[in-house]
Amino acid sequence: MTRYERLAQTMAAEIRSGNVAVGSRMPSLRQIIAQHGVSQSTAARAYHLLEQWGLVLAEERSGYFVAPLPKASKADTPAAPDEATTVDISELVFSVLDAARRPGIVPLGSAFPSPTFFPMSRLAKSLGHAARSVSPWSTVVDLPPGNENLRRQIALRYMRIGISQPADEIVVTNGALEALNLCLMAVTQPGDVVAVESPGFYAALQAVERLGLRAVEIPVDPHTGLDLDALASALRKHPIRACWFMTNFHNPTGVTLSDARKKALVELLAQHEVPLIEDDVYGELHFSPNYPTPAMAFDRNGLVMHCSSFSKTLAPGYRIGWVSAGRFAERVQRLKLMTTLSASIPVQAGIADYLEHGGYERHLKKMRLALREQRDAMSAAIRRWLPDDTQWTMPEGGYFLWLRFEEAIDAMELHRRAISRGISVAPGPIFSATSAFAHCIRLNFGHPWSPRIDTAIRTLGEVLAETAKGV
Amino acid sequence: MTRYERLAQTMAAEIRSGNVAVGSRMPSLRQIIAQHGVSQSTAARAYHLLEQWGLVLAEERSGYFVAPLPKASKADTPAAPDEATTVDISELVFSVLDAARRPGIVPLGSAFPSPTFFPMSRLAKSLGHAARSVSPWSTVVDLPPGNENLRRQIALRYMRIGISQPADEIVVTNGALEALNLCLMAVTQPGDVVAVESPGFYAALQAVERLGLRAVEIPVDPHTGLDLDALASALRKHPIRACWFMTNFHNPTGVTLSDARKKALVELLAQHEVPLIEDDVYGELHFSPNYPTPAMAFDRNGLVMHCSSFSKTLAPGYRIGWVSAGRFAERVQRLKLMTTLSASIPVQAGIADYLEHGGYERHLKKMRLALREQRDAMSAAIRRWLPDDTQWTMPEGGYFLWLRFEEAIDAMELHRRAISRGISVAPGPIFSATSAFAHCIRLNFGHPWSPRIDTAIRTLGEVLAETAKGV
Repeated sequence: MTRYERLAQTMAAEIRSGNVAVGSRMPSLRQIIAQHGVSQSTAARAYHLLEQWGLVLAEERSGYFVAPLPKASKADTPAAPDEATTVDISELVFSVLDAARRPGIVPLGSAFPSPTFFPMSRLAKSLGHAARSVSPWSTVVDLPPGNENLRRQIALRYMRIGISQPADEIVVTNGALEALNLCLMAVTQPGDVVAVESPGFYAALQAVERLGLRAVEIPVDPHTGLDLDALASALRKHPIRACWFMTNFHNPTGVTLSDARKKALVELLAQHEVPLIEDDVYGELHFSPNYPTPAMAFDRNGLVMHCSSFSKTLAPGYRIGWVSAGRFAERVQRLKLMTTLSASIPVQAGIADYLEHGGYERHLKKMRLALREQRDAMSAAIRRWLPDDTQWTMPEGGYFLWLRFEEAIDAMELHRRAISRGISVAPGPIFSATSAFAHCIRLNFGHPWSPRIDTAIRTLGEVLAETAKGV
Repeated sequence: MTRYERLAQTMAAEIRSGNVAVGSRMPSLRQIIAQHGVSQSTAARAYHLLEQWGLVLAEERSGYFVAPLPKASKADTPAAPDEATTVDISELVFSVLDAARRPGIVPLGSAFPSPTFFPMSRLAKSLGHAARSVSPWSTVVDLPPGNENLRRQIALRYMRIGISQPADEIVVTNGALEALNLCLMAVTQPGDVVAVESPGFYAALQAVERLGLRAVEIPVDPHTGLDLDALASALRKHPIRACWFMTNFHNPTGVTLSDARKKALVELLAQHEVPLIEDDVYGELHFSPNYPTPAMAFDRNGLVMHCSSFSKTLAPGYRIGWVSAGRFAERVQRLKLMTTLSASIPVQAGIADYLEHGGYERHLKKMRLALREQRDAMSAAIRRWLPDDTQWTMPEGGYFLWLRFEEAIDAMELHRRAISRGISVAPGPIFSATSAFAHCIRLNFGHPWSPRIDTAIRTLGEVLAETAKGV
């Protein structure tokens, strides 16, 4: 962190603490310089950051003032859950994400694990090395499907879990998010119906919205996963053109479909000739010894497009993901060429170098162990500080817990109150276009356990008590 | 280049030369090892590359054989040019691009300048340095709109050309192609009409096709640029929702709109409240002393979205572009978050570091000078080797020449014949959805002048003579 980022964080914590009233004048630049022994530019940059975070307002010629607390927007009104719906989830999602992005906030609502987990300096070494040694012609040769060495390394990882995957069918993308979006584009036209999960990853709902599709939400049980009977009935009732499902350590519930259910899912979709876009970005973060077999392993028809990335497991921010796209590989590759041309070429080579020489398995083992301990610590804190009737899941991988409170608790209200106490949570309604899950939240246990997080769970308990009483 | 790439190139040249007949058996791995003194894996990889390039076919247990020459697909039948058309250009474009991507080909049809122009090792230094020193939290802080330092450096470049551009309105993207696509998505719905150039950059036509839009093609004069009268009339006739135009060193003609015309363009569009997506990726490659002012400089209504990148000027393959998106900045930023999340974060920081410390101006000066000399050399070769009635442009920047032949010449036929002689050209029909420009080609002068290129132009002259005679 730079000097001015540190300074801004200190000042942000002060504002968050509630010791400075909304609207009160902040110290002048001159005072900050004297008080913290920093340069003028550091002080000015820190204020600029605080302004960006929405914590202070600048008024010309008179200085900086503490900004009012943010208002999150209202959830949409509920729609009938068994109809295909046009989706309008983005406003809600963006308002929640924006609130949670402000530093100084305890990021229990975050979608990312702590960046401190990752071997950033070893990765930087691989990246620098690869950038120096790639052939200048790689800018032509490594166009989609992508860097050959990287695709070979990814194919080797498939081989480790018993899947023989030709490197030629792997298309490298800017993270899994692009892979998922390209797959959806590859198999749908505006107006088509797509099956998504409920609760499910909001990016699926946003993609449905953006591409003018309609969504059928298939229920996900927090303990057994996707409801296959409901899916079978939806397939009979609606002209479903594609499914976008997360089979391992599902976001937000953490649940994993059993092998038998994955097999049944693939067979059901094969009967209807419906492609499955399988989002498997958390699979590598398994706590038991083995990677839970993805649904693609049961596919005999090239109908499963298996999407994953290194963003959650190795290199957040590098933006390298991929799809093993079966019979749709060429179409996905062309869509990639037309929309963003290619993933960054030195970065593809850098990740390939790391996978070959950097010690990925060692890193993963360490990370899995840490995540499991953090899950247990967070579960213990929930038991200690949250109401007795709270229900929550104990996932066997990933870094999300899914909590359900008694009916009096409104998750959006809880989110707003928690934010004003410096804690973010991910409220249930952002995981559905039907405003379901009003009493649920997702918590992130992907950060090293600390007294600060324990205190945050305790504070959440206080906020819950206030919310229940409507104080 | 690696050992096996060099070996593959040598063998590719041999196949291209015509000395080895189609269908004949290639040397065995053992022979290659003995002949070239390489390892078994080098020989095997070289064959793998040749296979990928479509130059050899592998037959199990019996070795490698010279592949038949590729067939390019036919151009579509012409449509009435003054109607809004649904576009189907991709097949044609991909077949031409695939043919031109094979190494060993003289890349006169390429869309890229020679990668040898770029300061790759200085860039790698900046990239390695930045990757080592970015804060782990940058993976959250540098989400769109993007790395603050990079956006500040881009704002400084706007300032150099007299445009005051707040860094906050700049959204960093995966190259200009993503910026252009996001802008188009931000202001259109499926079925909308969009004005594009004719001839124009095929990616605009592909985007129109992919998003279910309809295109009106506005003629571009190779000497004066976009026909503003035709645009005015199209604006009256069609409900145009957006324009996608290239104002400086236009692809494929090389023409630049004068300041007066740019001003008139912006005013005309303001009257109709139609947004302009300005593609300005070649502006920095100007041969006269000054950057030709982009149209955005004349915009008073926030209607111009100015898109550019470092892919043509500094760092091909790094995939860093941007848009200064005026009043549409927030919408573009959200579309970016929903589709690819973010441009690679260490790469953003690396480019920012280079811009600050790497000597960008020095590099640009050198590159502009080289390109001008290459333009002159190619023009001289055309005068010497091509038919007397050939017409061509002399652009003041970029690296494209636009040629027009007599009516007997079919550019698609010329393209096919040239490919079979080891030379790629970009045939006119890929720059329009209406199969116009049947007698035009685009040539790339972005490669260091060499006897090989001079010979290629001479060969092109021979091919033209054969084509004209229908031999």
